[in-house]
Amino acid sequence: MGFVIIGGDAAGMSAASRAKRNQHDLDVIVLEQTTDVSYSACGMPYNIADAGREIEDLVVRHAEVFREKQGIDLRTGHRVESIDRKKKTVAGKNLEGENFMIPYDRLLIATGGSPIVPDLPGFDLPGVMALKSLEDGRKIKEHIRARDVKKVVIVGMGYIALEMCESLRARNIDVEMVKPRPIFLPWMAGELASVVREEIESHGVKIYAGHTIERVEAVENNLKVICPDLELQGQMVLVAIGVSPNSELAAKAGLELGPSGSIAVDRTLKTTDENIYSAGDCADAYHVVTGQKTWVPLALRANRAGWAVADNVTGIKTELEGIAGSAVFKVFDLQVARTGLSTAEAEKSGFDPVEVVVKTRSRAHAHPGSTTMHLQIVGDKKSGRLLGMQIVGKEGAVHRIKAPSVALHSKMTVEAFSQCDLAYAPPFSPTWDPMLTAANQLLKKL
Amino acid sequence: MGFVIIGGDAAGMSAASRAKRNQHDLDVIVLEQTTDVSYSACGMPYNIADAGREIEDLVVRHAEVFREKQGIDLRTGHRVESIDRKKKTVAGKNLEGENFMIPYDRLLIATGGSPIVPDLPGFDLPGVMALKSLEDGRKIKEHIRARDVKKVVIVGMGYIALEMCESLRARNIDVEMVKPRPIFLPWMAGELASVVREEIESHGVKIYAGHTIERVEAVENNLKVICPDLELQGQMVLVAIGVSPNSELAAKAGLELGPSGSIAVDRTLKTTDENIYSAGDCADAYHVVTGQKTWVPLALRANRAGWAVADNVTGIKTELEGIAGSAVFKVFDLQVARTGLSTAEAEKSGFDPVEVVVKTRSRAHAHPGSTTMHLQIVGDKKSGRLLGMQIVGKEGAVHRIKAPSVALHSKMTVEAFSQCDLAYAPPFSPTWDPMLTAANQLLKKL
Repeated sequence: MGFVIIGGDAAGMSAASRAKRNQHDLDVIVLEQTTDVSYSACGMPYNIADAGREIEDLVVRHAEVFREKQGIDLRTGHRVESIDRKKKTVAGKNLEGENFMIPYDRLLIATGGSPIVPDLPGFDLPGVMALKSLEDGRKIKEHIRARDVKKVVIVGMGYIALEMCESLRARNIDVEMVKPRPIFLPWMAGELASVVREEIESHGVKIYAGHTIERVEAVENNLKVICPDLELQGQMVLVAIGVSPNSELAAKAGLELGPSGSIAVDRTLKTTDENIYSAGDCADAYHVVTGQKTWVPLALRANRAGWAVADNVTGIKTELEGIAGSAVFKVFDLQVARTGLSTAEAEKSGFDPVEVVVKTRSRAHAHPGSTTMHLQIVGDKKSGRLLGMQIVGKEGAVHRIKAPSVALHSKMTVEAFSQCDLAYAPPFSPTWDPMLTAANQLLKKL
Repeated sequence: MGFVIIGGDAAGMSAASRAKRNQHDLDVIVLEQTTDVSYSACGMPYNIADAGREIEDLVVRHAEVFREKQGIDLRTGHRVESIDRKKKTVAGKNLEGENFMIPYDRLLIATGGSPIVPDLPGFDLPGVMALKSLEDGRKIKEHIRARDVKKVVIVGMGYIALEMCESLRARNIDVEMVKPRPIFLPWMAGELASVVREEIESHGVKIYAGHTIERVEAVENNLKVICPDLELQGQMVLVAIGVSPNSELAAKAGLELGPSGSIAVDRTLKTTDENIYSAGDCADAYHVVTGQKTWVPLALRANRAGWAVADNVTGIKTELEGIAGSAVFKVFDLQVARTGLSTAEAEKSGFDPVEVVVKTRSRAHAHPGSTTMHLQIVGDKKSGRLLGMQIVGKEGAVHRIKAPSVALHSKMTVEAFSQCDLAYAPPFSPTWDPMLTAANQLLKKL
């Protein structure tokens, strides 16, 4: 049987490796349009932060290893342009300009996502960059070096924008951020978002939220980001306003799409075509809190979905429960973590959300080195269910959030969560873990 | 109604405060035999580490605050010696030697635990100390100062012994540890225990496990701990072989006892007497994994049980689910965390345990500053249930363990746990969190 995979990053290569491991005689062909496979995309901001490191450090496994050690027919520089579902073939062009057509028995579309670039004048100028693929990272490092970049304007304020603030400041590059929407981190509880904002500003980053962007202009050696009421300039513009799923191939082939134009898949990762799966940043997923479809392009999910596809293709029936909306990032000295739904998301999903925001210490009474933690917890007034949590703090936020994530998978009530035996020792928390304090306070309002 | 509480530490004062908050006109009398109430006992090793800090820094709330602001009739220096269940009175003596007798409608026994001291010659010599009460901490600090202690022999190798290693080494005091049983941290997976042992030894602490202790002798200015094959000496001997529940009062009053001689209570914290509750280190609890009674003297449980007693006494019916066997501690640069059952405990409880030990990196591929993490995961072959986890590492062990703790409360299977959306970012973990890697590997054996 022939298993063809379009896309050689997290989901695609996870699927290829596991399929071969499950069934050694399976023909596995991976068609990757770039020449990079299997790299830590999420590691790019940290690599860019260090001028002395090669972007290639992020490659987890080289193409030759997949080919020679794992027996995967990995074809880089192969861009798939169409899928013929009747004939069960994919067709496209390689880097040499040659056409190819390959038959499949089972197909995996793992085409990932692409950075959204606004359709405005000047966003195609040299020096206007985005960060998604290893090639993007390579170009950014080269641009910083070649142009001796001293200042960057970041358009957008999502995870990647914030991680890149830290990255660029580490190289002593000035950073200004701008976006049209007035609210900084709109999915976050206001008090928590303020803490993040202050942290960023305390590192010299300027934040301009609520400025419509009109265009980018090249002015002498600089690029200018122009708003009606503001002009920012630097030697580089980083566009980090979000990602969209690469679902054009699937759409052209008539497969059903889900939220945000991602490829709709069932719990076995199958699309609306019996023989075609999709996984990774291009595909949708179930949300364990709402039970509804959602689209969250994150790495763990991509790897897990890749594995599940491989299992299903090789006859090991596997269903994925879904995602809990967990996401974490670091920005300067702060850890930021979320899981589940924000209050606004919970309302939209038909819950009757109640929230509590608490401010606590990170360590026990009188323990040295304690810092401030801010938590938001959301529960459902009707059912008592825990719906979500957000944590911001200098220590312990990111690993803590895994506990409420598990609780969301279990559909726990806030009360049940408040009874959990979350271990205590003075260097790590007050006797009542801040999450328990938050749950205890929320209980009074439920 | 009169609510009398014997014992003014974590469980007792939590109960007193909450009972008053719930029902302002309730008469709440607390009888505490020492003069210290409401302090962070767990913080003592860290306070002792710093010669410049007063042990009183650990007092969370002073007696006057309880009395004046909260209206609690807090009587320190009152030692209860008997309970008359028929007459519903408690009787005893105060520090002035005066007898007292106090009637109760509801009674809470929160007498805590006491360090176990071996019944061997010399363990009553001056300079042989234990660490449980604030008074113990005060005496240890004073002894170190007055005697200019340069070397301590610790008898026992449990949590407190290990925390005290770090504490004493921080003051540049030499430490040797000795115990009769040959296995270091016997509840811990061997590979993990070795990591902890190496960490301690790398800080100059000598570990002698498997030496029967015969006696302590005073020799000139030193104390000698004498084994048949070993003699250790220092200016102080710290006895840290464990704690036993202070259940004599309850036993004398004819109340039923549970594991390790702790006071048996139901899920409402009620003893076998309708009007008497017990909470804290003197009382037993249900284990959420085994469903059986267990005795684990830890601070969170004491606070939580105190609250639950207050709720039940004031008419808010509350049941506690129980404990998951979570415990965490820091020892030098290592974090040590456990939840649930070890393999041996699981066997004893009738499960068919299978375990996996994994060694992973703490951060993503190519992320700087990554360290080694060791994890053990235990599952039940019959039911597929997750039974326990242990983690040792320089970062992220303690907060991570809260996720499997929640999973144990939910009686999750290893498979369900392996599907959890545990957030990923390169500074904090590999794409697959080490706990997921452990779960994935265990799944293959279940």
